[in-house]
Amino acid sequence: MDVLRYSPAADELAWTFGGVAPVRRVKPGTVLELWTEDAFAGKVRTTDDLVSRVIEFPFVNPLTGPFHVEGAEPGDTLAVHFVSIEPSRDWAASSTIPLFGALTTTHVTAGLQEPLDELVWLYDVDTVGRTVTFRARRTDDEVELPLDPMHGTVGVAPANLEARSSLVPDAHGGNMDTPEMRAGVTCFLGVNVEGALFALGDGHCRQGEGETCGVAVEAAMDTTVIVDVIKRVSTPWPRLESDDHLMSAGSARPLEDAFRIAQHDLVTWIGEECGLDPLDAYQLVTQACESPIANVCDPNYTVVAKIRKQYLPRLDAYAGAHARLKEMSAGYQAQRL
Amino acid sequence: MDVLRYSPAADELAWTFGGVAPVRRVKPGTVLELWTEDAFAGKVRTTDDLVSRVIEFPFVNPLTGPFHVEGAEPGDTLAVHFVSIEPSRDWAASSTIPLFGALTTTHVTAGLQEPLDELVWLYDVDTVGRTVTFRARRTDDEVELPLDPMHGTVGVAPANLEARSSLVPDAHGGNMDTPEMRAGVTCFLGVNVEGALFALGDGHCRQGEGETCGVAVEAAMDTTVIVDVIKRVSTPWPRLESDDHLMSAGSARPLEDAFRIAQHDLVTWIGEECGLDPLDAYQLVTQACESPIANVCDPNYTVVAKIRKQYLPRLDAYAGAHARLKEMSAGYQAQRL
Amino acid sequence: MDVLRYSPAADELAWTFGGVAPVRRVKPGTVLELWTEDAFAGKVRTTDDLVSRVIEFPFVNPLTGPFHVEGAEPGDTLAVHFVSIEPSRDWAASSTIPLFGALTTTHVTAGLQEPLDELVWLYDVDTVGRTVTFRARRTDDEVELPLDPMHGTVGVAPANLEARSSLVPDAHGGNMDTPEMRAGVTCFLGVNVEGALFALGDGHCRQGEGETCGVAVEAAMDTTVIVDVIKRVSTPWPRLESDDHLMSAGSARPLEDAFRIAQHDLVTWIGEECGLDPLDAYQLVTQACESPIANVCDPNYTVVAKIRKQYLPRLDAYAGAHARLKEMSAGYQAQRL
Amino acid sequence: MDVLRYSPAADELAWTFGGVAPVRRVKPGTVLELWTEDAFAGKVRTTDDLVSRVIEFPFVNPLTGPFHVEGAEPGDTLAVHFVSIEPSRDWAASSTIPLFGALTTTHVTAGLQEPLDELVWLYDVDTVGRTVTFRARRTDDEVELPLDPMHGTVGVAPANLEARSSLVPDAHGGNMDTPEMRAGVTCFLGVNVEGALFALGDGHCRQGEGETCGVAVEAAMDTTVIVDVIKRVSTPWPRLESDDHLMSAGSARPLEDAFRIAQHDLVTWIGEECGLDPLDAYQLVTQACESPIANVCDPNYTVVAKIRKQYLPRLDAYAGAHARLKEMSAGYQAQRL
Repeated sequence: MDVLRYSPAADELAWTFGGVAPVRRVKPGTVLELWTEDAFAGKVRTTDDLVSRVIEFPFVNPLTGPFHVEGAEPGDTLAVHFVSIEPSRDWAASSTIPLFGALTTTHVTAGLQEPLDELVWLYDVDTVGRTVTFRARRTDDEVELPLDPMHGTVGVAPANLEARSSLVPDAHGGNMDTPEMRAGVTCFLGVNVEGALFALGDGHCRQGEGETCGVAVEAAMDTTVIVDVIKRVSTPWPRLESDDHLMSAGSARPLEDAFRIAQHDLVTWIGEECGLDPLDAYQLVTQACESPIANVCDPNYTVVAKIRKQYLPRLDAYAGAHARLKEMSAGYQAQRL
Repeated sequence: MDVLRYSPAADELAWTFGGVAPVRRVKPGTVLELWTEDAFAGKVRTTDDLVSRVIEFPFVNPLTGPFHVEGAEPGDTLAVHFVSIEPSRDWAASSTIPLFGALTTTHVTAGLQEPLDELVWLYDVDTVGRTVTFRARRTDDEVELPLDPMHGTVGVAPANLEARSSLVPDAHGGNMDTPEMRAGVTCFLGVNVEGALFALGDGHCRQGEGETCGVAVEAAMDTTVIVDVIKRVSTPWPRLESDDHLMSAGSARPLEDAFRIAQHDLVTWIGEECGLDPLDAYQLVTQACESPIANVCDPNYTVVAKIRKQYLPRLDAYAGAHARLKEMSAGYQAQRL
Repeated sequence: MDVLRYSPAADELAWTFGGVAPVRRVKPGTVLELWTEDAFAGKVRTTDDLVSRVIEFPFVNPLTGPFHVEGAEPGDTLAVHFVSIEPSRDWAASSTIPLFGALTTTHVTAGLQEPLDELVWLYDVDTVGRTVTFRARRTDDEVELPLDPMHGTVGVAPANLEARSSLVPDAHGGNMDTPEMRAGVTCFLGVNVEGALFALGDGHCRQGEGETCGVAVEAAMDTTVIVDVIKRVSTPWPRLESDDHLMSAGSARPLEDAFRIAQHDLVTWIGEECGLDPLDAYQLVTQACESPIANVCDPNYTVVAKIRKQYLPRLDAYAGAHARLKEMSAGYQAQRL
Repeated sequence: MDVLRYSPAADELAWTFGGVAPVRRVKPGTVLELWTEDAFAGKVRTTDDLVSRVIEFPFVNPLTGPFHVEGAEPGDTLAVHFVSIEPSRDWAASSTIPLFGALTTTHVTAGLQEPLDELVWLYDVDTVGRTVTFRARRTDDEVELPLDPMHGTVGVAPANLEARSSLVPDAHGGNMDTPEMRAGVTCFLGVNVEGALFALGDGHCRQGEGETCGVAVEAAMDTTVIVDVIKRVSTPWPRLESDDHLMSAGSARPLEDAFRIAQHDLVTWIGEECGLDPLDAYQLVTQACESPIANVCDPNYTVVAKIRKQYLPRLDAYAGAHARLKEMSAGYQAQRL
């Protein structure tokens, strides 16, 4: 089992998917022990560190990577299994950002009102008790919320010769901001360029569905993934598999198009996997799916379509890649103890 | 405890919220034992009963009601507690409908492509085993799904002198099609006209989030609710309370506006309930909420914003109406045995 | 030639399409000499008359009508030819309204920012010089703009047993707010109920395309129309014919759906009128149409699709109804001098 | 007067804004005599040349450029004055493309219906008579339409380290597809990278507003522009100035956000130019603007906000750059005769 440990220096961070040279070349099946900086590039550390003051665009939402995965070619699928995602500091931060978020006018949902106040919230992170603590800024209230670490940004180089900001979710993955991207899950991404050029970042200690104010409980993360290549199988939009569910993630505006993409992909996927006629798959998904919103704040909005595997007549997604990678993950974790 | 049993004759069904005379006057606190016809007006009974053939618009999605609740006035809130929702037949039906649903052009997302095929699916309903059985139309596949009864359509007469089709969800409730509307939940609706004029219909044996093809597992229902009036408390958009969650339901197009309405209402509601500053409530909801999509097929789309009560610093929504109605429900059920 | 003069008393104004008894019954071919109150119900007369203070919802955007046109039945089309639209006062008013308009959050594009300031602008109306005068409120600037009178709200009773607020544009017409609705134009509306129940209001001395701030140069109007019935010809969405153009008006959210409806209707309409294959009509409209936005502030947004008649291979829309009504208009005007 | 003549070889075409090395360096004030290939890369020449057969993605919509304009730095504005745009062949082509266009489901407005038929239309182009001839494919109809040449795609390298497909319109310009981009107009674009990296392509002999089917009357063009740099004046979204109008072009989804961007930019721009308070500018634009839709088919939709200069109290946009460049254009054209 190849294991690569990699922690980027400040000047090794990437800010786009595409347009960046790989930091390492790895073989399929490699375990990557990675460190990711938080979305604020580590610059929001006190409640006085307002984003508009400490962040210089476009240097926000840094990525660790990209990694060139050997043998990955356009038309293949990259599988990324999340072995573990653990906060690397005992605090995390969130913030309002002027003209960003779902409950405000923005630069594109443009308006003439004054922006909302810019406030920073700092959270205590307890990795033993598995909680984060919200502290209200304008009253004395405190609430403990479950720690539920995830990565907001996971992707490969995009198609069409493009380079996209790390803030953007689209068919290449990117800043989807779905809480489903947690340890134990395998993410499948269509390969657009040789080597796939996988990168990730934007760790969240937890996030509500929609990331309403635009910012989650942002944290640096120690994250281990196993990357693999599934040859000659294409994946049009990001897909996830957990032990219990199949999921598709659509990203677009308006939000109904994100929903349509995710549903269309799930219907098509299970139709092919299970040998169902498209209209039968459409009917089954209609009655059986869950549709958690991921983000309604990024340049594209993201919705997940999700179905329990037990509701499918039969299933062998990506020839059992999730089960295989899970086994590798167990082997790696056993060996590490 | 006042109990009213009411089962509408075919010519007593209502097809709009507003514009219809009440079928009964009831006192606050009355238990209503109701029967609701299915959304097809009971006309889809075999796979040959195509909607385009057997349904004559606008006679679709019939309502039981409206009920004039005494003392309810504009500015008050109607509370509707769902005691039980049980399928009244051992079968249910679903269908594709030409130019209706999320994965097709429609009369408003207009296009020039041919409509999808019109197909009917019939489900077996097992109220003992608590399952419904999906049978594929074009292969031999069968899947058992959990029975999870709910009402798609629950509402009061709208504001602004309007009468709205029973197919429409909006601020008055209506055809929200959220699976959260199940037994054990209390629904809060702002009163727009004297007597509130509450009605309901569109029972579903179960429904995925989004009601993708436009039609759930449609069934006639035996449904018991308790109605109550909360005086001088207004409710801008439909709210639900379960034992564990507070929820707001926003309905609009595009889908992000449904999300915005639900989130804005939840942020405002818990801000007021918990004495949190709006920006603190915005932050807390951002990290703690769930955002299940309800429908992406009706004239307005619906999204629910949902937060666990345990994540709130303090709470006494509608002065404990949900707990009070739950107790009445328990009393009624005990008495009935 | 039947001529009916009608000016509603304050208590004869209508506030919805549908749900209102007709004020008069008229024969097809009748000339209606009408007066319409302004959208503020005449209550904004000084810059101190803030809408939030002087208007009590839903009593805004009053309608003159409805008129029962004899012989009009569902499946027919009502033709309304605008003979003349003239401001009946020498002033007009506009305003910002809190949480209303395109460049602000609203009750449905919900947000947490403070509303914009509420300001009233009064315009001088010069019906001889054919200008209105804009006076800035916060500087000394003045601009003369051409007088270009139109009706924002023109419609019939809606389908599906509904009653819709006069603020809503949809398939029944209503508050489309298109500057194309000016003298010399014929508007075609599908009939949904017996008698059609035609009403109109919301005169504008002029309006930009989109009605950005939500309010045009609002004025009471002396308006003359001729109404006619085209039997057994249905009209799915409002259409307009001028001497030079055919137009379709789509109303929906998001705005692209309003565009799609209007384009789909124009493509279908000219395809049928000209005997063009739908794809040929699609291609011709793609290269030849104009697409002025009507409103981006009302409960539905409205877009017009517009094509010069000279770009069509042949044409006889509604069997020449526009030309025929124009001739009647000329006859009426000649007789009146 | 510096004049550069440049016609790209096939392997010199660019397919993105950003991510491409400049083909030439030019001084501000240079006249560029350019040739642009058509959006089909010249591969659709008969009605048998179906796009799905002859085009290999992403090699569609080729750009001539980019040009490094000396001295242009982030925060400056690039002015591009269109001296002339003339079709370089006597024919042009249009097409339907499967799952592309406004009246069909697409890859993002995803659905399960069959795509529309793929058809090619060839147009005769008469540069003397100034017409193009539409010939229906499925009937014998022919229509002459006015020749009105324009460029669909005009832009600079984007911000945020991105490279964007030439099919995308956004703040950097790109594939806006507005018929307003015709000879005599000056286009202002905010500079994001050193040298601006200006490129253009996608000539249209004419185009309806919205580019409904997704494809205009596509043609190779001989186009002359003058480029200039306006130092230390930023431009957030593309702006155009003609002899009569100021215009802003917003690109986003949903379409109302494109409208909002354009309106917000025009309101802000004329507010600053004319010394009007933002709310007064909002009111004036509300009553005076035109809002032609540009495209409803590209990855972002585009709307133009347009106001007659005569309706503005005073004006000196970009310190008279349009008038100055027009004078240069006249000098160049005089010299050329």
